[in-house]
Amino acid sequence: MSSLSSVLPKLRSRIDVACDQALQRTFDTLIDMPEACELLNGARQSVASGKRFRAIGAYIGAAVTSQTLLGTHDLEDLAAGLELYQASALAHDDVIDHADTRRGTPTPHRTFETMHRDRAWLGSNSDFGQAAAILLGDLLFSAAEAAVHRYCGTIPPLRGGAVQSRYATMHAEVALGQYLDVRAEQLPLDPAHDNAIDPVLVSEVVRLKSARYSVVHPVLLGANAMGANADLLAALEAIVHPWGMAFQYRDDVLGVFGDPEVTGKPAGDDLIEGKRTLLLALTWKNATAQERHLITQTFALPTQERHQNVQQLRHIIRERGLTALEDTIDSLVSTGNAALDRALEEGLINHESAQILRELGMILTKRSS
Amino acid sequence: MSSLSSVLPKLRSRIDVACDQALQRTFDTLIDMPEACELLNGARQSVASGKRFRAIGAYIGAAVTSQTLLGTHDLEDLAAGLELYQASALAHDDVIDHADTRRGTPTPHRTFETMHRDRAWLGSNSDFGQAAAILLGDLLFSAAEAAVHRYCGTIPPLRGGAVQSRYATMHAEVALGQYLDVRAEQLPLDPAHDNAIDPVLVSEVVRLKSARYSVVHPVLLGANAMGANADLLAALEAIVHPWGMAFQYRDDVLGVFGDPEVTGKPAGDDLIEGKRTLLLALTWKNATAQERHLITQTFALPTQERHQNVQQLRHIIRERGLTALEDTIDSLVSTGNAALDRALEEGLINHESAQILRELGMILTKRSS
Repeated sequence: MSSLSSVLPKLRSRIDVACDQALQRTFDTLIDMPEACELLNGARQSVASGKRFRAIGAYIGAAVTSQTLLGTHDLEDLAAGLELYQASALAHDDVIDHADTRRGTPTPHRTFETMHRDRAWLGSNSDFGQAAAILLGDLLFSAAEAAVHRYCGTIPPLRGGAVQSRYATMHAEVALGQYLDVRAEQLPLDPAHDNAIDPVLVSEVVRLKSARYSVVHPVLLGANAMGANADLLAALEAIVHPWGMAFQYRDDVLGVFGDPEVTGKPAGDDLIEGKRTLLLALTWKNATAQERHLITQTFALPTQERHQNVQQLRHIIRERGLTALEDTIDSLVSTGNAALDRALEEGLINHESAQILRELGMILTKRSS
Repeated sequence: MSSLSSVLPKLRSRIDVACDQALQRTFDTLIDMPEACELLNGARQSVASGKRFRAIGAYIGAAVTSQTLLGTHDLEDLAAGLELYQASALAHDDVIDHADTRRGTPTPHRTFETMHRDRAWLGSNSDFGQAAAILLGDLLFSAAEAAVHRYCGTIPPLRGGAVQSRYATMHAEVALGQYLDVRAEQLPLDPAHDNAIDPVLVSEVVRLKSARYSVVHPVLLGANAMGANADLLAALEAIVHPWGMAFQYRDDVLGVFGDPEVTGKPAGDDLIEGKRTLLLALTWKNATAQERHLITQTFALPTQERHQNVQQLRHIIRERGLTALEDTIDSLVSTGNAALDRALEEGLINHESAQILRELGMILTKRSS
């Protein structure tokens, strides 16, 4: 029996090719002129790398549903749709966050900004970079949609309808989740208020932006594609949703304590961004008046001046929030595991599928620091 | 027989309702929380008004193909898809252009900026406004896609496939066309170069952003929905494409000479933006060295300082470009008319359809100044 990790390299290559081909299909509908290539090459670069996490989720959902080996089915256009959409969302996120790099390479808006500067064009470098990156994101969204339509044309209409409808819900949720996330960062903190960082709102953002977008929808899209019934869909959601939440909470720990060498992000990145994480919400709740004051003060500073408080904030978070968060993560992991055991008992999934899902759970929730 | 203009008011109300309902369908898939309403209300406001030009095009294409009265078929979700996508593109355009108002009301990014300021939130007002407007555009794109999927599920799969594929081509073309348009505005002008404003590139932008997006695709989407054959599709494209080009060229005249009271835009708006129109390309080609120098100088100024040269530029354009552009428009109108006569002769369209199309041609190409 093939384990998840043994299949991943081959699956990733297939997904890389699928992304490239899907993008090319969209380019083929467009005119071929040198000026257009700037945008098209930008799109190619944006999808050239990535962990292909969401696409892999779709293959897992399909394998579990059809009880076949991972990678048996040709889900390439669905996989490409997930990854192209992710590249689209990242291009827009990077504009919103004013991010300079992602995975070690310049973000799209910075790349276009540099092109503008190098060519000594008229107007503002940064305005052009931003405009081009917004349009790059729109083009990638367009190519993603086209890929998903194409995929749905290859499966029975009822399944195709389920896939398209879930896919549409997914991208609406991401837009809303991202809005709620950005919005939360703008809120002034009132040290007298225990829930000034509202754990309910914070976990809603994690649900939309991480658990559902990165895990539940990809796996269930693969399951929908293979015609999974309502019981199996519910069982899969019950298994992977808590793991998806735990995955983000683990990531939030890295956003505060992670090693820049490993994470590829600046030290204490989330603190500098002012990101409202569950880790911060729990810290806030348990913090002293003085500690709350320091957090409030830090977030009132301009972003570029916050790094001076990072060490102190880390200390407070370690004292007040980290244990409670680890408890939450452990409990979520157990909830997912219990749902997996139940699905196995009820015969909704077989032993091979359970094994693949367990491996997915490990990847999603294991401690990496 | 009902003329286009007599049906328009009723059709517009139907489209308004369809947009609202389609948006509501997407909202129904999302959580109901007060914070989310900010984004959802923003989306509602964005689609609340508009000429519904593209949606009407789809009804025309359907009526011509099925040889039925205008508005006979339920195209509501397709119509909503066109208008929601338009609202999405405008939200992003307004960020790109730093536009303050559209149709007399504040643009989405300015509305969110004001909200941020009024609530005394943390961070930059304008950064938040821009972030929220990008995400608003993404949410509208998402709702548009969902509406088109739904529509395609109600027609035979072959027709649905044709509609979805054309719709996807349409939004990819808009992203590219918009990129080429923004890019053109950045190019420094060389007074020694006759084609420094390249008419080929300019007309390519008009083809993508106006003729195809605003006219050809909407009409042909309606035709595809009714199962138009290749001959009819080609005939319709041959009729409306030149009219769509003429429509934009006429609009470019208004962008230079239009009355702000009528156009709702500042006087000489296109000149201040530095928009590379065919009107400007023709002017440039026929201009003296001194006149080219003035144009070059103006576009090298920061946007907010260009208005001081508007009167002089208008004079040059009137002398050097306007007649040539009017000739181009007349020739495009004739080309469309001739294609219409041919389609009628060949029996591809009937007399009632020809009448509706003629009315569309008049609306698209008539002089409004």
